[in-house]
Amino acid sequence: MVGRRDAKATATAAPEAAVPPASKEPRTERGRRTLRAILDAAAEEFGEKGFHDGSIAGITRRAGVALGSFYTYFDSKDEVFRALVRDMSQQVKEHVGPAIRAATSQIDAERAGLLHFIRFARAHKEIYRIIDEAEFVDPESFRMHYATTADRIAARLREAADRGELRDDISEVHAWAIMGMNVFLGLRYSVWAEDADPEAIADVVASMLARGIAR
Amino acid sequence: MVGRRDAKATATAAPEAAVPPASKEPRTERGRRTLRAILDAAAEEFGEKGFHDGSIAGITRRAGVALGSFYTYFDSKDEVFRALVRDMSQQVKEHVGPAIRAATSQIDAERAGLLHFIRFARAHKEIYRIIDEAEFVDPESFRMHYATTADRIAARLREAADRGELRDDISEVHAWAIMGMNVFLGLRYSVWAEDADPEAIADVVASMLARGIAR
Repeated sequence: MVGRRDAKATATAAPEAAVPPASKEPRTERGRRTLRAILDAAAEEFGEKGFHDGSIAGITRRAGVALGSFYTYFDSKDEVFRALVRDMSQQVKEHVGPAIRAATSQIDAERAGLLHFIRFARAHKEIYRIIDEAEFVDPESFRMHYATTADRIAARLREAADRGELRDDISEVHAWAIMGMNVFLGLRYSVWAEDADPEAIADVVASMLARGIAR
Repeated sequence: MVGRRDAKATATAAPEAAVPPASKEPRTERGRRTLRAILDAAAEEFGEKGFHDGSIAGITRRAGVALGSFYTYFDSKDEVFRALVRDMSQQVKEHVGPAIRAATSQIDAERAGLLHFIRFARAHKEIYRIIDEAEFVDPESFRMHYATTADRIAARLREAADRGELRDDISEVHAWAIMGMNVFLGLRYSVWAEDADPEAIADVVASMLARGIAR
């Protein structure tokens, strides 16, 4: 069972093209490093300045790459922003996925998902500004980010219900509720202030998911 | 007990100045109607066009008031936007408050809060765009909106725990978790698509809060 926990989710998690569009995928290890440097620099640039004040020149300067290298992978500021949103979705998934799959119960898996998301958001506070700004700059990316995340959560909850670990009436509503909790707990305890222990926060939520909050 | 459910919350809910700043509060019933028309028009204008493309002229046209009337209450586009965010916080509170106070248990109260929030968001879909854009246009208003909402939820949960209705270990984390659920369920089932019955959504969440999702 362990190790298959998130299996079905993988299939639904990337309905869009890879990052960047397939025709521009780097073919060498050096190319992959350059692309990675550009995306990391874009996260810094847009995270600090926002989309409108951020610039391609700012990105290449931060990345330490030539303008020509940028245009090898992206045609415009819009395109690198869109790729960045997909990349951040992917990074969250890769960061929390292993811990979720290693958990020995679904409640533990959800606990691990939140714990590792809070840690990721502390190290990448800019993710909030970038995803939130996507609502205005690139609504389709914004929608895709949350829709694919919710699909992934719904798939793993459904599997756990089928295994008999969760209630039979598990639905998409639970997935959106859990995603919403995690996003807002990350906003409060990663972006606004790191004034609580992530393990303690994850314990509270795991216990709520296990048995509710009624006396 | 009923009728006092949200009492403590009232005190913590409005640390900011009233809408608009006190010096410009309307003194007559006619003035109050004009101010209401301006705020409703501002919600339409910013909800449709966003802050940057929205204009004072667009607001006064929609409201059917003279430019001079606008400046009786607000000095700038920034100021009316800030007042609008506070007004929307207040409207949500007034819309969900009575149902929360009328509930006969805290789980029912949380169910009622979500149910009425989903209904409010279906009738006022623009609230998402306005609050979300506040993160960029007026970060202090954005922060205040969520901080005061979380304080209100935390206060009513704490009271319910003190009454013996909820677990003793109720904390701010539960308040943020519940707020996050509600915001994302509203995004999914009010703004994106009205493809599920609000009563059914509220039932799912109430049951999760009552006894968790484990089998």
